[in-house]
Amino acid sequence: MPENTTKPHSATFLATCPDGPGIIAAIAQTLYQKGINIISSDQYSTDHKDGQFFIRMVFDLSEDKVNHQELEQALAEVANKLNMVWQLTYSNQLKRMALLVSKYDHCLMDLLWRWQSGELSVEIPFVISNHLDLKERVEAFGITYHHIPITPETKAEQEAKILALLKDKADFIVLARYMQILSANFTEHYPNHIINIHHSFLPAFIGANPFLMAHKRGVKMIGATAHYVTSDLDAGPIIAQDVTQISHRENVEDLKRTSRDIERNVLARAVRWHIEDRIIVHSNRTIIFT
Amino acid sequence: MPENTTKPHSATFLATCPDGPGIIAAIAQTLYQKGINIISSDQYSTDHKDGQFFIRMVFDLSEDKVNHQELEQALAEVANKLNMVWQLTYSNQLKRMALLVSKYDHCLMDLLWRWQSGELSVEIPFVISNHLDLKERVEAFGITYHHIPITPETKAEQEAKILALLKDKADFIVLARYMQILSANFTEHYPNHIINIHHSFLPAFIGANPFLMAHKRGVKMIGATAHYVTSDLDAGPIIAQDVTQISHRENVEDLKRTSRDIERNVLARAVRWHIEDRIIVHSNRTIIFT
Amino acid sequence: MPENTTKPHSATFLATCPDGPGIIAAIAQTLYQKGINIISSDQYSTDHKDGQFFIRMVFDLSEDKVNHQELEQALAEVANKLNMVWQLTYSNQLKRMALLVSKYDHCLMDLLWRWQSGELSVEIPFVISNHLDLKERVEAFGITYHHIPITPETKAEQEAKILALLKDKADFIVLARYMQILSANFTEHYPNHIINIHHSFLPAFIGANPFLMAHKRGVKMIGATAHYVTSDLDAGPIIAQDVTQISHRENVEDLKRTSRDIERNVLARAVRWHIEDRIIVHSNRTIIFT
Amino acid sequence: MPENTTKPHSATFLATCPDGPGIIAAIAQTLYQKGINIISSDQYSTDHKDGQFFIRMVFDLSEDKVNHQELEQALAEVANKLNMVWQLTYSNQLKRMALLVSKYDHCLMDLLWRWQSGELSVEIPFVISNHLDLKERVEAFGITYHHIPITPETKAEQEAKILALLKDKADFIVLARYMQILSANFTEHYPNHIINIHHSFLPAFIGANPFLMAHKRGVKMIGATAHYVTSDLDAGPIIAQDVTQISHRENVEDLKRTSRDIERNVLARAVRWHIEDRIIVHSNRTIIFT
Repeated sequence: MPENTTKPHSATFLATCPDGPGIIAAIAQTLYQKGINIISSDQYSTDHKDGQFFIRMVFDLSEDKVNHQELEQALAEVANKLNMVWQLTYSNQLKRMALLVSKYDHCLMDLLWRWQSGELSVEIPFVISNHLDLKERVEAFGITYHHIPITPETKAEQEAKILALLKDKADFIVLARYMQILSANFTEHYPNHIINIHHSFLPAFIGANPFLMAHKRGVKMIGATAHYVTSDLDAGPIIAQDVTQISHRENVEDLKRTSRDIERNVLARAVRWHIEDRIIVHSNRTIIFT
Repeated sequence: MPENTTKPHSATFLATCPDGPGIIAAIAQTLYQKGINIISSDQYSTDHKDGQFFIRMVFDLSEDKVNHQELEQALAEVANKLNMVWQLTYSNQLKRMALLVSKYDHCLMDLLWRWQSGELSVEIPFVISNHLDLKERVEAFGITYHHIPITPETKAEQEAKILALLKDKADFIVLARYMQILSANFTEHYPNHIINIHHSFLPAFIGANPFLMAHKRGVKMIGATAHYVTSDLDAGPIIAQDVTQISHRENVEDLKRTSRDIERNVLARAVRWHIEDRIIVHSNRTIIFT
Repeated sequence: MPENTTKPHSATFLATCPDGPGIIAAIAQTLYQKGINIISSDQYSTDHKDGQFFIRMVFDLSEDKVNHQELEQALAEVANKLNMVWQLTYSNQLKRMALLVSKYDHCLMDLLWRWQSGELSVEIPFVISNHLDLKERVEAFGITYHHIPITPETKAEQEAKILALLKDKADFIVLARYMQILSANFTEHYPNHIINIHHSFLPAFIGANPFLMAHKRGVKMIGATAHYVTSDLDAGPIIAQDVTQISHRENVEDLKRTSRDIERNVLARAVRWHIEDRIIVHSNRTIIFT
Repeated sequence: MPENTTKPHSATFLATCPDGPGIIAAIAQTLYQKGINIISSDQYSTDHKDGQFFIRMVFDLSEDKVNHQELEQALAEVANKLNMVWQLTYSNQLKRMALLVSKYDHCLMDLLWRWQSGELSVEIPFVISNHLDLKERVEAFGITYHHIPITPETKAEQEAKILALLKDKADFIVLARYMQILSANFTEHYPNHIINIHHSFLPAFIGANPFLMAHKRGVKMIGATAHYVTSDLDAGPIIAQDVTQISHRENVEDLKRTSRDIERNVLARAVRWHIEDRIIVHSNRTIIFT
């Protein structure tokens, strides 16, 4: 990740470990000794026996008197003692988000628009699609568009091509209505780093045609679900969901239009939380510090 | 239904028939010839071939110059020509709502409170429960409480007792968290006249313990569904649904508390729509004129 | 409005008159005599003395056996007897929507995106702006961009220029965050045909800096309001409103970002309702048939 | 506050002080030295210069090896150094909530129902009303009902009576639709300890008849606001707000019914947050740790 050292910046610490007394004291003491001010701190512990501790802290590094390497080393020492899994990211090192898309444009265009207007602090190295439809519109944003068509016969080969493109170029992947099912081999390269948007309120209407299913069942709300992708289709950890009221007047075509607004909002929310390091995955569930 | 003829009143006409030109003209002409003013009229037609026509009209009968029997006869003649299924109800004839409940009090108390404060224009002949827990609180509202305990062995017999109580005393039934599954024999006595509240966003989490399932799946919203009861459990026509955002912080107990607020609101909405004759069931889906 | 007579189409009838018996009968009879099928019909009457009647009907004209001129003449005769104000529009005659914008892009881009994806059945003759910032992005949609800068001194003159552009070219106007206050002279040319989006939940926070006012007052929700423009700033008939929960964590900059999502959704909703002829204005309030 | 020492319990620490490095370290270190586990910790700092630090921590005291007095003394020492305003409350010491009401029952009944079903961990010493209407229904919950009628002439005298009843008996006061304006003399006895529910989305429709004002303005949403009472009517710190969509069909009577559901939900939320020590007031705004 390219670092912009001139800007005043902050660091986000995301960590989990077995619960017990003294965890916050140990971290806070370490930071205090380095003269670092904590901007925000949010903790959660599961309430059952053998509880798990989760924390998100944001530190002020704007005065730049702190050496990143020394800070990381100090935190590593504390984390080691606490059997802690952790990460530290810097606000002046933008994450790199690769986008995969097929033909539907609404989620992609919404993310690109938010990126362009400065809402998403992220770099976009390229967009990959199995179709050519959105090429011009993506390139109008000054973003490279890779066309990698996929047939059942060429799937393994084409996934390998995509993985090659992603390697060292992308930190996480967003499936902005990408209509191909990724193989387990692919998804295992990016555990909890591939975000998908599903056009239903999961676990209702798993699978291919949720609008038809919703219409037939006569539900009064439809929704969308953003989740991390695992090898088990539509079963990965849920990040964000939302729904909206519908009525008997809406046919399957109307549901599609209504759904587009929910999909793009839910996906944008999930992407922002991922970018801002607000999510920890634990036992296929997400802890989200908002 | 007892009629209060002294009060100014209105009539609600609810009907469906095969679509075609001239249906509204025929009904409106009939009413006009009797000098009746239409207060509101709301129509819906399915948009596919061999479409179906649905209508809800409210007529002003406040001047009382209209004879009910003559009005019904005139409408019957029109309906007959149009192959129409229809009903006409009068605002001064209150529907009779029987309530079935087990131990959870929130849906029952909410309906009784709304009834007491005049929000629900309905008579409540009695409450039936398979437990004694809520007897005193129901009787404090001046309402009869029938205790009909049920065991697997006595189910058929006890259902027969309930049916005997309902006969000629109740127009529709509300299951305000009644934890017994009604037999097909029972439900067939009251097609589209038994309203149930299910504590999940159907069709997600069908069955017995939706909170545990929701918690395990890590969903970010929970909901409730009011539906008419058919012999197929949790699969009857949906009347109303709502959801609320939850977070990882809420354990199964918290979900129960959160759900109670949604359940009572969704059930109250469905009951009000049923009382106000706003619902037509067609092909296991509800057409709701709001 | 250019007419595409080859496409199967429908007509939307929107009307209001003093209430009384026989209104629906008269209209429905007229349509029936011409063999026209009513697709949907929605009526509302105010419930006070000397009530007012409002109706929206959609007719099926797909078989094209109906002569538009004859239909309009027949309706005019009925309307005349009923002292009715009415309009009839055809689904194959697209309305022409002129867009005015300053520098903020979110509302404009959202409308253009919805138009491009076929969500809004409308023509866009041009975009007018007092700034050059959005010129390229508008032209990328193949839409003409008129730059008409405004200073306090040139305001009257520039408004005259805009009016000249609009004349015979636009049926209604959308202010997609246009930061100039239109003169009464201007707005009177387009009564109930100029839609504005205000970035607050009116009537709270009328005027220039609603986010700062909202933050200072410590409200827990912010909203947006789409309304028809009258000569009285922020006081025109409200078409659509929505809000979202906020917390103490959001500063004025955060509120701006949060607000953008509400603004574009609320404006899109209001524009769609206007395009679909769902709105009647009566006594500075809107009757909306949804 | 009566203490139930047999139950396993927790303590909630709520504090604010000028921001700076080392605050969390100092508190966490103090707790760690006493072997206390932090169950949850949520911090917020204002982001402007001369920032203010706010924190809510919940400590596990279930093993009961901690002496309350020693804990408080240790915290007082830390707080003293940091120029901190703080409070510590114990989960086994229930707060005492006095309720003031006039004639509307919905907010009162909802709170009593939630209290009865164990949702609100609080004691209710009595209900005070300037009317007799709700006496029986309150006493049915086993709660004392004080009738203190008020006229413009007797206001000062009657307020003194209420203050005498509250003294040493109530920790905070909820105005559950109490239609008397409390004098500044009264409110100054309980700064940030009187919760009121206002039946509009403040600051829209301040004052006596918000429904009529909302109907006249033709808004598309109505709402409710729970806030702490200050001497400046309807201008105190806002705790919770919510709104719901309405349409032109709803007259002023309908708005009242619709509003009741929002009012009771918003008030219950505010009361729960107060009981759970989730609110800090700063510069007439609330910091709420949810």
